[in-house]
Amino acid sequence: MEDKTQNPQEQPSTNITEISESWPRRAWAHLESVRRASPLIQCITNFVSMDLVANVLLAAGASPAMIHSIQEIPDFAPKTHALYVNVGTLTPDWLPRMKTAGRTCRHSLMLTDLFQGVDSMHDSADAVEAAKSLAQVTGSVVAVSGAVDIVTDGQRLVGARNGVAMLQKITATGCSVTALIAAFVAIDPLRPFEATATALSVFGLAAEIGMEMAKGPASLRMHLIDALYGLDRDIVHRRTNISHM
Amino acid sequence: MEDKTQNPQEQPSTNITEISESWPRRAWAHLESVRRASPLIQCITNFVSMDLVANVLLAAGASPAMIHSIQEIPDFAPKTHALYVNVGTLTPDWLPRMKTAGRTCRHSLMLTDLFQGVDSMHDSADAVEAAKSLAQVTGSVVAVSGAVDIVTDGQRLVGARNGVAMLQKITATGCSVTALIAAFVAIDPLRPFEATATALSVFGLAAEIGMEMAKGPASLRMHLIDALYGLDRDIVHRRTNISHM
Amino acid sequence: MEDKTQNPQEQPSTNITEISESWPRRAWAHLESVRRASPLIQCITNFVSMDLVANVLLAAGASPAMIHSIQEIPDFAPKTHALYVNVGTLTPDWLPRMKTAGRTCRHSLMLTDLFQGVDSMHDSADAVEAAKSLAQVTGSVVAVSGAVDIVTDGQRLVGARNGVAMLQKITATGCSVTALIAAFVAIDPLRPFEATATALSVFGLAAEIGMEMAKGPASLRMHLIDALYGLDRDIVHRRTNISHM
Repeated sequence: MEDKTQNPQEQPSTNITEISESWPRRAWAHLESVRRASPLIQCITNFVSMDLVANVLLAAGASPAMIHSIQEIPDFAPKTHALYVNVGTLTPDWLPRMKTAGRTCRHSLMLTDLFQGVDSMHDSADAVEAAKSLAQVTGSVVAVSGAVDIVTDGQRLVGARNGVAMLQKITATGCSVTALIAAFVAIDPLRPFEATATALSVFGLAAEIGMEMAKGPASLRMHLIDALYGLDRDIVHRRTNISHM
Repeated sequence: MEDKTQNPQEQPSTNITEISESWPRRAWAHLESVRRASPLIQCITNFVSMDLVANVLLAAGASPAMIHSIQEIPDFAPKTHALYVNVGTLTPDWLPRMKTAGRTCRHSLMLTDLFQGVDSMHDSADAVEAAKSLAQVTGSVVAVSGAVDIVTDGQRLVGARNGVAMLQKITATGCSVTALIAAFVAIDPLRPFEATATALSVFGLAAEIGMEMAKGPASLRMHLIDALYGLDRDIVHRRTNISHM
Repeated sequence: MEDKTQNPQEQPSTNITEISESWPRRAWAHLESVRRASPLIQCITNFVSMDLVANVLLAAGASPAMIHSIQEIPDFAPKTHALYVNVGTLTPDWLPRMKTAGRTCRHSLMLTDLFQGVDSMHDSADAVEAAKSLAQVTGSVVAVSGAVDIVTDGQRLVGARNGVAMLQKITATGCSVTALIAAFVAIDPLRPFEATATALSVFGLAAEIGMEMAKGPASLRMHLIDALYGLDRDIVHRRTNISHM
């Protein structure tokens, strides 16, 4: 169910502040800021996803840094604007690198803010409750991907409804959207809840546009990146689909 | 030389059993089973090939798991339906992981069944004899890729004739087809000889269809994955080209 | 500033030797030699770039070998025609592998010849002076990528002007062109200065042709590889743009 009050195209308002805070306008403001500021996103992720993660960040306007050496982290992490850590394929030798990076990153996203990109295998009511509990216990923003991506800070809850089903047939799309969340949080660090929702929708919107040209998962992957690179204000304003649940 | 008796399009038969066991019908049955059952294929492969391997498995309908941590393997391997191991770029730290995975995987493909994806640099008569001997000594199915891919269990020998020469200009296609073999064996584990031959042909057929649109190796790689995702019964029945040698 | 005297299209000459030594003809001769000889290029690079590096080398006609195990290097390196080492994401466990490979490679490119692919963040006059000094101190050829790629052996200095700005939005293009330099040096090892300049231009020219069809960074990456694979003499002769500075 969409909360139409958040959508200026559906319900025009004379209140400028409210309009400027609508989800589609917020999504465009975030994307434009990423393109302008080109935040440096340190990525600690698995070997399967590095290529797509790096190219998605570049297409969005961010600067990916695939730093792995624990020796480099103390020097490097303080210069990064956000840190993206993928714990999907943990090996013991990665743990100290992640902890060191988390301690030294300027906007340390681990421990304080926790982002979870999890393929929802459960019924969405269960997922919503689990996500809320996790957000409350950890004091973090929690996102759960699925047919509708949900984002919660423990109190607020929105659904980001952009995206296409075929994304599940491409490896590392979950990793990539999480890295994009890091880039959006980097340029709006005081509002991680909003930045997480808009990043999910912007990525999903790029997938929708890519899907219009795709003939299968491999061409979708290519067109998605091209579309993310080419997203303009008009499309983002018209098609961002985030609503309170 | 093709054995036309195996091809129902060439020589129609009233014997339903025989038709249902023909190579093109078997190839379609295998692909359909992979799409339906989505077997979980654990892949232990090198870093260059992970991306293509994972995306080929996803496009075929299987579920890739790129697990590497030796700590995860005892828990994870028993849940997988097949294990694909690439020994092309062995390093000593990988060996114990491969052995642990091989011991604990439900359908352990190492040691019992051995799949070899080797670029044939020798004359095909030599390759045939070497493959047969290896299959007899190890009690395994052996495949040798080349202009014609050959598959043998030591007694039987078939040639899988689908494919295009430009595949040699794309990295990791050998790794990817071997992972696809693992997926096909996973859904027909009692007939690894047949599953190996049909997987090789299905991959080669996707390459042939991709080649119709490709302008070079990079677009072939994309179109191959799209084509594998979109293969339908009609095309598989008409164009699967496997014959006894 | 282009040195038009180097371009036979701009200033025809009756001196056959001079023409055959012109940059466009040299570029084609190098590319043709790579295609004919298919030099084996050992690549020690990071995990993000392996896929693109390997596919660029294959598209150019070279044979990539992504060998990493230190145990394999003493046996393998003497058989390679050139070694490409990326020191961009060094970790301590890689250093001994690089050193071992450098010592045993037939045309050892480290220590004797040093190739640097560096994103120029400085003003080009500064970059030129720094590159010249580095080349003089090390006795190596030094390349600095940027809006114009510069190549110097400490005495001579050329600018390679092919390329497109969108390359910066694709990960691992710097790594890939450096691997291509290794392939060009492998087939003309006595003239690393010339081979470096022509490799940079050939890669940039493939990007220019790819850009004509690209809709964004991901399709540029695909079309670039296809274009590199398909480059013919006419295009290389007409569009190679290298000039003394």
